[in-house]
Amino acid sequence: MKTIIGIIGLGLIGGSIGFSLRKFNYNVIGFDFNKKNSDCALKIGIINKIVSFQDLIKISSIIILSIPVDEIIKILNNILNKVNKKQVVFDTGSTKYSICKSIISNKNRGRFVASHPIAGIENSGPQSARYNLFYRKNCIICDKKLSDPDALLTTNKIFNILKMNVSYMESKEHDIYISYVSHLPHVISFVLSRIIFKKFLYNKKKFIKIIGNGLISTTRLSKSSSDTWTPIFLDNRDNLIDTIHLYINFLKSFNNLLLEKNIYKIHKYLKKYNINKIINDINYE
Amino acid sequence: MKTIIGIIGLGLIGGSIGFSLRKFNYNVIGFDFNKKNSDCALKIGIINKIVSFQDLIKISSIIILSIPVDEIIKILNNILNKVNKKQVVFDTGSTKYSICKSIISNKNRGRFVASHPIAGIENSGPQSARYNLFYRKNCIICDKKLSDPDALLTTNKIFNILKMNVSYMESKEHDIYISYVSHLPHVISFVLSRIIFKKFLYNKKKFIKIIGNGLISTTRLSKSSSDTWTPIFLDNRDNLIDTIHLYINFLKSFNNLLLEKNIYKIHKYLKKYNINKIINDINYE
Repeated sequence: MKTIIGIIGLGLIGGSIGFSLRKFNYNVIGFDFNKKNSDCALKIGIINKIVSFQDLIKISSIIILSIPVDEIIKILNNILNKVNKKQVVFDTGSTKYSICKSIISNKNRGRFVASHPIAGIENSGPQSARYNLFYRKNCIICDKKLSDPDALLTTNKIFNILKMNVSYMESKEHDIYISYVSHLPHVISFVLSRIIFKKFLYNKKKFIKIIGNGLISTTRLSKSSSDTWTPIFLDNRDNLIDTIHLYINFLKSFNNLLLEKNIYKIHKYLKKYNINKIINDINYE
Repeated sequence: MKTIIGIIGLGLIGGSIGFSLRKFNYNVIGFDFNKKNSDCALKIGIINKIVSFQDLIKISSIIILSIPVDEIIKILNNILNKVNKKQVVFDTGSTKYSICKSIISNKNRGRFVASHPIAGIENSGPQSARYNLFYRKNCIICDKKLSDPDALLTTNKIFNILKMNVSYMESKEHDIYISYVSHLPHVISFVLSRIIFKKFLYNKKKFIKIIGNGLISTTRLSKSSSDTWTPIFLDNRDNLIDTIHLYINFLKSFNNLLLEKNIYKIHKYLKKYNINKIINDINYE
């Protein structure tokens, strides 16, 4: 009998997982709280069948939760209460600590694997799903000691099929790091987008004339779904507030260099201490 | 006789102009203060010939200045003093006000056209030049009333060959707008890059595991050349300091929404007031 995989949430991430697994001949069933999404997912071939939430929990060997992080927290205990010792549940949320904390005393905690495939793009919905979304992207599995070895193995197998680079971290640590490399960039992009909106809303003609690629790439993330990102920002609020504070202080320091007209230090700032240096170092090591 | 076009500065922008104009059979000669750049430019076919600075000024019908803005200001008066009433000079600098101000009393002011082809990418040097860099990108010509009509016409012709969308602005206005849509995004990207550098310099293994596309696109601009961007930031310093201040205030407001856990307002912030709204409006108009 074919393994049945049940995906809850058929947006960009859930949809892309569905596409990939169907290519490998899995039987993929799905449920979305938004009927339009599940209808679209069935139509474009993300899933073999739409089922009810209850049926999905009952008949899936592997249950994948690709819904906003606040919704995961709302339903995860309920799902774990219903699964048996052979079923595996994993999520794809962008924060991990509060999800793991919410099920710490659940008797079936071991059946859950806290996962974060880092593969989001600015587009959302099943219509944006693509089978190669995860190719060679990072995936972090958190608090692996709290998952049963077989559940971990099964989840790993799925991410291997998606061709992801899997590694492990504590959930608390994950949330701190991800606030730097993902949540802060999103905030930066949304806030930049808002300033531009304010400056050019009543002057669109000027905007069309002066816009360039630099702005396009720096505001790319601001196209991301507010339904996905509001819960992420709130869930990782404490880390994110710290990170934004730090970023503001760094901006102030840079502004001070401008006020001082410190050519030497500005030149050094732009040239030396940046991400490309780390990436080069990694490539040479 | 073929029109001779002389390019001073054979990096990304100057080099890409050379490639494009040679495709249209112009005789393109070049000079770069860095001999390595001119040798490379000749070798890869950006220019037909390397000439001395003095010869370039003497024999070119059109002189294009693609060097950092502070260097333009240093040599522009000198160049204009030497040109005749048939020669045209235009620049490609990212700021316009101080360049225009520096030559306001030059007797040959009319031979100069202050231009900003908004087409830079994060890579620099002649080796990054490409003939289609300018395709359908914006180009702003500033203070056009101060240029002789024939000089304006000639410059426009070149930008038309490069397939750019040319429009006009006052130089002061240009520098304010560009501080929002280009200089601020560059600062944001450089500063983000610096934070990530600081956080992960001694923890590169974690960095490799957790990096994703969001960070890559938001820090793309931080790969830009410090030789190009230090003078731009300093030249547009007053506008940029104001813009960074405003950005810091916007970040603080966003942080306040997080502190208040204001789900409704955060959701609205992310969804409504951003650049994509303006772009959609433009597309529907």
